[in-house]
Amino acid sequence: MSKFKTRNPDFAERVRESFNRQGFMRYLGAELSIVEPGFVEIRVSHNSELTQQHGFFHGGVIGTIADNAGGYASFTLMEATDSVLTIEYKLNLMSPAKGDILIARGRVLRAGRRITTCQSDVFVMRDDEELLCATMLGTFMTMENTSDEPDNN
Amino acid sequence: MSKFKTRNPDFAERVRESFNRQGFMRYLGAELSIVEPGFVEIRVSHNSELTQQHGFFHGGVIGTIADNAGGYASFTLMEATDSVLTIEYKLNLMSPAKGDILIARGRVLRAGRRITTCQSDVFVMRDDEELLCATMLGTFMTMENTSDEPDNN
Amino acid sequence: MSKFKTRNPDFAERVRESFNRQGFMRYLGAELSIVEPGFVEIRVSHNSELTQQHGFFHGGVIGTIADNAGGYASFTLMEATDSVLTIEYKLNLMSPAKGDILIARGRVLRAGRRITTCQSDVFVMRDDEELLCATMLGTFMTMENTSDEPDNN
Amino acid sequence: MSKFKTRNPDFAERVRESFNRQGFMRYLGAELSIVEPGFVEIRVSHNSELTQQHGFFHGGVIGTIADNAGGYASFTLMEATDSVLTIEYKLNLMSPAKGDILIARGRVLRAGRRITTCQSDVFVMRDDEELLCATMLGTFMTMENTSDEPDNN
Repeated sequence: MSKFKTRNPDFAERVRESFNRQGFMRYLGAELSIVEPGFVEIRVSHNSELTQQHGFFHGGVIGTIADNAGGYASFTLMEATDSVLTIEYKLNLMSPAKGDILIARGRVLRAGRRITTCQSDVFVMRDDEELLCATMLGTFMTMENTSDEPDNN
Repeated sequence: MSKFKTRNPDFAERVRESFNRQGFMRYLGAELSIVEPGFVEIRVSHNSELTQQHGFFHGGVIGTIADNAGGYASFTLMEATDSVLTIEYKLNLMSPAKGDILIARGRVLRAGRRITTCQSDVFVMRDDEELLCATMLGTFMTMENTSDEPDNN
Repeated sequence: MSKFKTRNPDFAERVRESFNRQGFMRYLGAELSIVEPGFVEIRVSHNSELTQQHGFFHGGVIGTIADNAGGYASFTLMEATDSVLTIEYKLNLMSPAKGDILIARGRVLRAGRRITTCQSDVFVMRDDEELLCATMLGTFMTMENTSDEPDNN
Repeated sequence: MSKFKTRNPDFAERVRESFNRQGFMRYLGAELSIVEPGFVEIRVSHNSELTQQHGFFHGGVIGTIADNAGGYASFTLMEATDSVLTIEYKLNLMSPAKGDILIARGRVLRAGRRITTCQSDVFVMRDDEELLCATMLGTFMTMENTSDEPDNN
């Protein structure tokens, strides 16, 4: 049972459609694995093009899916006529993202009328174990009556 | 004339070699356009795979080159035997990155023995004009006697 | 000549009145030394109650005036009927604030309709020289038709 | 049972001594209410000198105890010969701090050899209920063989 009340019964479908329109998500091979009220999980499988020189996931990939998981977690709680915009985020890279699958879990900390604050934790799956490698704290804005998709997500 | 003193005369070559080993930079088509003491510029040309749904540059691309420009600006001031690690960064997305070329300019604000603070401004070139679209404030760590490349850049 | 256009000719008076109503600013002995379109300077004199154990200015004092300088820089560009709210800020503490006077200079990086992004640099005056000790990047919201003062400034 | 292992059996006493030497904590009337491995709670009672114009707790007070709770949570896990330094923090102010007691709870997310990442949640007690009003994500550095107290805490 979620502590959040949704305003749009089709929130999950709306998030999926928006996610699918993001060329960069396709380019990264990102998958939207969970969509719940106030919570979104995004996964990316290991691929040599997404790495830095040690073969670990690149920080840019970590930041991208952390931001998107937070933005879409915010989006789940918005009206069907709203869109979402990333205002800013802060990312702490806590340990090397060495593993097979990168998993970002974004959750809403507080949803205001205009401003939603989210946190995303990013894990890397290594030897069947999930290790926390980064955390993000970000701020997202509700764009009322903006039928199209957000600029920064 | 830079206000910074370098410790490694081959700093520019070392930054270029490290940049070239980053698979994700190649994947994005990023170019290391300027390397000076305490300053680095990175450029990415427009490409439909790097966009969000409006055709603008994706926020993930902005964050990636902002972080890298800051990290490599830090790296220019380090010893030949050091490597650099992104501890954290904060990115404010100030306007849509609508244009042909994305340009991140990272500069060192203060270089301490272990910790370097950098700022990156990100511009988008539109109709031959540069528009500020994002700014990053980040923290980078000097890893002494670490011959290989950084984990998070 | 400022690059910013003000909407309220009495912006400086409005900032001063708001500042003077802040009990915590009085408690810290803070002075609003400059108010210009998109720019505000706040000064605090050294005092043993504002210090940490080395006798330097406490990080909490630095954060407080950095946030306030950014918030009031934003406020200078708003309508007479708006108020300002701090959404978030990030502060990098770059060197010890050892000196006689702490000076925060907040300036607007971009003023949007709802969201203003500001940077504050914090200096400490030591032996008649200003030394950069911290920098802040923050996000402020315009509260339309909110006659009273902001909650978080 | 804490998930963290301490290196100094007298960690709690060391935190209390350091806290008591902070002039600014006394000035704010702050109390160190809980000290556990990787966790610290700080409380401040309502007082007209700590308020903004609505009579709520000032954002500067929130930032100060959020930073300190994170810094001291880091400090609990350090050696008896280490000191702690705040590198940076980011604070999201999520709702007005209207109430009688302000409570910051800082906890370690990851403790590395040099860098510790912490989160602090700040609550305000109103009508016997705790309300989340802010959250902080910050980075703290271990200063080895630095017998005295930190500069920025």
